[in-house]
Amino acid sequence: MPEDPTHKFPRLAIVGAGSMGTMLALGFAEAGFAISLWDVSSDNIDHAEKVKSDPANKAFASRITTFKDSREFTASMPSTSPKVFIFSITHGPPADSVLEILGGDLRSGDIVLDGGNEYYRNTQRRQRDLAVRGVEWIGMGVSGGYQSARHGPSLSPGGSREVVEGVLPVLERFAAKARDGSPCVAWIGKGGAGHYVKMVHNGIEQGMLSTLSEAWSLLSHTLSLPQPSIANIFKSWLRTPELQGTYLIDIAITNCTKRHEADVGSNDPRRDSLVLPEVLDKVVQDADGTEGTGVWSVAEAAERHVAAPTIAAAYFLRIESAARGQRARVAGKLRTPAPRTVDLSDSERDAFVETLRRAVYASFVAGFCQGLELIARASRDEGWDVNLGTCLRIWRAGCIIQADGIAEIFAPALNSGAQIMNMKLVDEVAAALRENVGALKEVVLRGVEWDNYVPSLAASLEYVKAAGSTALPTQFMEAQLDLFGAHKYDRVGIEGEDPGKVEKGAKHFEWMPA
Amino acid sequence: MPEDPTHKFPRLAIVGAGSMGTMLALGFAEAGFAISLWDVSSDNIDHAEKVKSDPANKAFASRITTFKDSREFTASMPSTSPKVFIFSITHGPPADSVLEILGGDLRSGDIVLDGGNEYYRNTQRRQRDLAVRGVEWIGMGVSGGYQSARHGPSLSPGGSREVVEGVLPVLERFAAKARDGSPCVAWIGKGGAGHYVKMVHNGIEQGMLSTLSEAWSLLSHTLSLPQPSIANIFKSWLRTPELQGTYLIDIAITNCTKRHEADVGSNDPRRDSLVLPEVLDKVVQDADGTEGTGVWSVAEAAERHVAAPTIAAAYFLRIESAARGQRARVAGKLRTPAPRTVDLSDSERDAFVETLRRAVYASFVAGFCQGLELIARASRDEGWDVNLGTCLRIWRAGCIIQADGIAEIFAPALNSGAQIMNMKLVDEVAAALRENVGALKEVVLRGVEWDNYVPSLAASLEYVKAAGSTALPTQFMEAQLDLFGAHKYDRVGIEGEDPGKVEKGAKHFEWMPA
Repeated sequence: MPEDPTHKFPRLAIVGAGSMGTMLALGFAEAGFAISLWDVSSDNIDHAEKVKSDPANKAFASRITTFKDSREFTASMPSTSPKVFIFSITHGPPADSVLEILGGDLRSGDIVLDGGNEYYRNTQRRQRDLAVRGVEWIGMGVSGGYQSARHGPSLSPGGSREVVEGVLPVLERFAAKARDGSPCVAWIGKGGAGHYVKMVHNGIEQGMLSTLSEAWSLLSHTLSLPQPSIANIFKSWLRTPELQGTYLIDIAITNCTKRHEADVGSNDPRRDSLVLPEVLDKVVQDADGTEGTGVWSVAEAAERHVAAPTIAAAYFLRIESAARGQRARVAGKLRTPAPRTVDLSDSERDAFVETLRRAVYASFVAGFCQGLELIARASRDEGWDVNLGTCLRIWRAGCIIQADGIAEIFAPALNSGAQIMNMKLVDEVAAALRENVGALKEVVLRGVEWDNYVPSLAASLEYVKAAGSTALPTQFMEAQLDLFGAHKYDRVGIEGEDPGKVEKGAKHFEWMPA
Repeated sequence: MPEDPTHKFPRLAIVGAGSMGTMLALGFAEAGFAISLWDVSSDNIDHAEKVKSDPANKAFASRITTFKDSREFTASMPSTSPKVFIFSITHGPPADSVLEILGGDLRSGDIVLDGGNEYYRNTQRRQRDLAVRGVEWIGMGVSGGYQSARHGPSLSPGGSREVVEGVLPVLERFAAKARDGSPCVAWIGKGGAGHYVKMVHNGIEQGMLSTLSEAWSLLSHTLSLPQPSIANIFKSWLRTPELQGTYLIDIAITNCTKRHEADVGSNDPRRDSLVLPEVLDKVVQDADGTEGTGVWSVAEAAERHVAAPTIAAAYFLRIESAARGQRARVAGKLRTPAPRTVDLSDSERDAFVETLRRAVYASFVAGFCQGLELIARASRDEGWDVNLGTCLRIWRAGCIIQADGIAEIFAPALNSGAQIMNMKLVDEVAAALRENVGALKEVVLRGVEWDNYVPSLAASLEYVKAAGSTALPTQFMEAQLDLFGAHKYDRVGIEGEDPGKVEKGAKHFEWMPA
C-alpha cells in the first residue's frame, strides 16, 4: 500500500489567495492536507474566508487556516520537517516581491513549488539565488485554469529530480487523473523545464483556440448555423477517433448552448437568451501584459529556430483583436467585407462540416508538432532531460490541450525513448497529416473565398506543405541573399551540398561586381 | 559651402576586415578619408591587402593602411581630436571580445560607430559600460549588404544625438544618396534605436523576400514561365507606380537572367546556362545563428505585442527551408504534392500576372505596416524619440527594402510629425490596402489551389482582413477563455465595454460551476 503523503507533509503552505490560490487550497484540503493560506492582500484573505464558509466546502474547509501576517503564516508550519510552500502569485515582479517578504523565513531544506505561469528564466534565476541557502525552488506548471485548480490540474514540476520526486506523493494525490487512473504529474526535467513545458502547453492551446474559433466562425457566420446546431456538430466531432477527448471541443458545447438564466433577474428578458452573442471579439490578455506564456512561446520559437507558424498566427490574431476601437476605425477606411453567408444544400453542408472536422484535426496536430519540437529543442539546448512522452502523459487530463485522439498518434514514438526532434518523421503523425491536409486545403480555400478568417488554419496548411517539400520558394530567396549579401548557397544535386548541412553554403556567385 | 569633414576627421579607424569591413574601408577611402584598418585575423588583413592591390581601387587604395597589431593600429590615429572607430564585427560575443582587446586604448571623447547587426540590448549595455569612461558608443545599422557597403549604404546611427550629429558630415559623404541627392543617414534616436531600426529593416526585408519568392514560385513552377520571361515581368512591374524603385524586384531581374559565363571554364557546357536553377532552396542564416535580425524581429514583435504575421511567416518558412535533409525524409512520409502546373491562355496569364503584381504590393505594404508599428512601439516603450519619417528617408536608397512606390504612401503622414502607432489609419496606406486586398485574396486562392506555397502572402491577407474587422473569430476564443480561465470579457454594445479599453473585461459568466 502506498504511503500516505499526509504523514510526511501534514501541512502545506499556500502563498497567494487569488482565484487560483484559493482553488488550490480547497483542492489540497479536500485531498486531506492541512493548509496554511496567506496573501499580501487582506482583501484576498477575506474573500478566501467567504469561500471557506460556503456550505459546499464544509467537509474540509476547516483544514484551511488563513493568515494576513506572514510571520504567523510561516510559524504555523511544523518545524520538524522540510516545509512545502506552494506559490500562486502573478509571474515576474509580483512573485519577486512576495518572495522578498517571505524569503527570510525560508530555511535550508524548505521546498517552494511555484505554481504561477512564470517565465522559465526567472525560475532559473530564483533557483540559483536560493540554492546558496539550501532552499529548493521548483517551477511547477499548473494547467487547467481555475476549473481544474479546484478539481485536479495537470502539474509539470521542474527542477531537482530528487526534490520533485520527494513531494510527488503530495502532488499525485491532488493532480488530475487520466482515464487509466494515473495522476497527471511527473518530474518534467531540470532547471526551468517545468515552467517551460507549461509555457508551450499554453502556446499549443493558443493555436488550438484559434483553429477552433476559426472553425466556429465558418459554422456561425458563413453557414449561418444556430449555436445549438453548432453544439451538436461539436458533440459529433467528439465521437470520432481523431477528436475524441478534446477538452476545448467539449467545453465548446457549453459555450454554444449556455443561456443567461440565473445570471440575470427572474424577469429579465435575457433569461432565455444565449450568453455567447454578448461576448466581444476582443482577447486582451497578451496585449495588456497579464498573460506571458503566449508571448514567450512565439519569442522562444523564434530564438530557438523552431518553426511554429500556427502558434504565431494565433498569437498575432489575438493581438489584432485586442484593439477593437482601432479595428473599427480601420474598418471604415479599409471597408473590409464581412464574412459572407453561403447557402448550401444539406448534403453540401454536411460534407463541408466533415471536411472542417478533418481540417481542425490537422491544424491541431500541426500545433502539437510545433510545440513538442520547441520543447525538444529547448531541452537539448539547456540540458534539461525532458521526456516528451512524459509531457504527453501529464496532458492526458486536467489541462486545456488534452486531446486523446491526438495524444495517441504521438505517444508510441515519444514513449519509445527515442530522441525525436522532428515530429513529422513519426509515422502515425505523418499519416494523420497526409490524410487530412487535403481537408485543410479545402477549408482554407473556402474560408478565404467566403471572406471568413483563417489565419491559423492557413498557417498550419503552409507549415505542413513546407515541412515535406523539396522545392520551396526559398530557392529564389537564397539567390537574392547571395546577390546582395554574399550569403553563399549550396547547389542542387551536388554531393555534400544537397541536402548538405544547416550551415553556410559552399558557393558564392558574383551576380554583379561590387 | 559645407565644411569638408575630412578636415575634422582626417583619419578613420575601421575595426574588422571581413567582407563588410573591407568594403567600408574602400568606400570611405574613395570618399576621401585616410583609413586605418585592423583585424584580429591576419588572414583577413592579407585579403584586404589583396583587394587594395586591385587596379580598380588604385586611385584611393593608398589611403588605406592595414594593421595586424592593435597597438600600432590605435597609435596610427591622430591624438589631437576624438578618434572615430567603425566596428564591422559579427554581433554578440565576437564584438565583445574585440572590444576587450581594443578597450584599453579607447579614451574619453572617442567615438565608436558599431556597424554590425548587433542586438540593440547589447548596444545599450556597451553604451552604459563605456559611458563611465567618456567613450561614446553609437549603434549604427548599415543596410544594403556588401554591395552597398562599397558604394554607399543606408546608415542608421543611434545613441547620443550630439555625438551622431558631430560625425554626420563624415557619414553623409559616404552614405547612399536618394534620387534628390540627400544622403541616407540621420540620427535615428537614443540608445539602441539605430540598431533596432536596422533589425526591423531586416524583418521587413524578410517579409518582402518571402512574398517575392512566393510570387516567383507561382510564375516559375505553376505558370512554367522561362526565367527570362519572369525577368521581363519584373521589369514591367518596376514601371508601375506601386512597385517603382523596389530594389528587390530590380535585382530579381539579374537573379532570373544571370548565366554562369566567366564563373566556369571557357569550355564548360554550363557557360550559357542560368545560375538560378543550381541554387538550393535552403536558407540557413537564421537556423545556424549567424543572422540575428530576423530572429529578433519576430521575438520583439511578440514581446511588444505588435502583430507582425507576415514577418513571422517568412521567418518560419526560412527555418523550415534550412533542414533540407529532413524535408526530403518527411516528403516521403507526407507525399506532399509538388506545385501544380497550369495551362492558362495568354490573356488569363496576363490577368493573373497583373493580379500577382498587386498582391505582391499589398503584401509589401502589410510588411511595412508591421515593421513601422514595431519601431513606433519600441520607441515609445524605450523613450528613443524615433521619427518614422526619418526611417523612411534613410531607406530611400542604399538599402534592401528601398521601394519608392511604397515609401510614397507612408511619407506624408509620417513626416507630418504626428505620432502614428497604427499605420492602417493612414489614408494613403489604407487606400493601397483596400484597392489591392482583392488581388491578394485571389492570389492566395490560386496559390493554395495549385499547391504552390503562399505562407507570407496568406499571412498578409489575414493580417489586413483582421485589421479592419469588427467580427473576429476571437469572440468564441474569449468565451472559451472565460469558461476555463475566468478571464472575463467585455460585452457587445455596452457603453464603456464596446469597444472598451485594451484591458481585462468587465464580465465573468459562470459557464460551469467550478
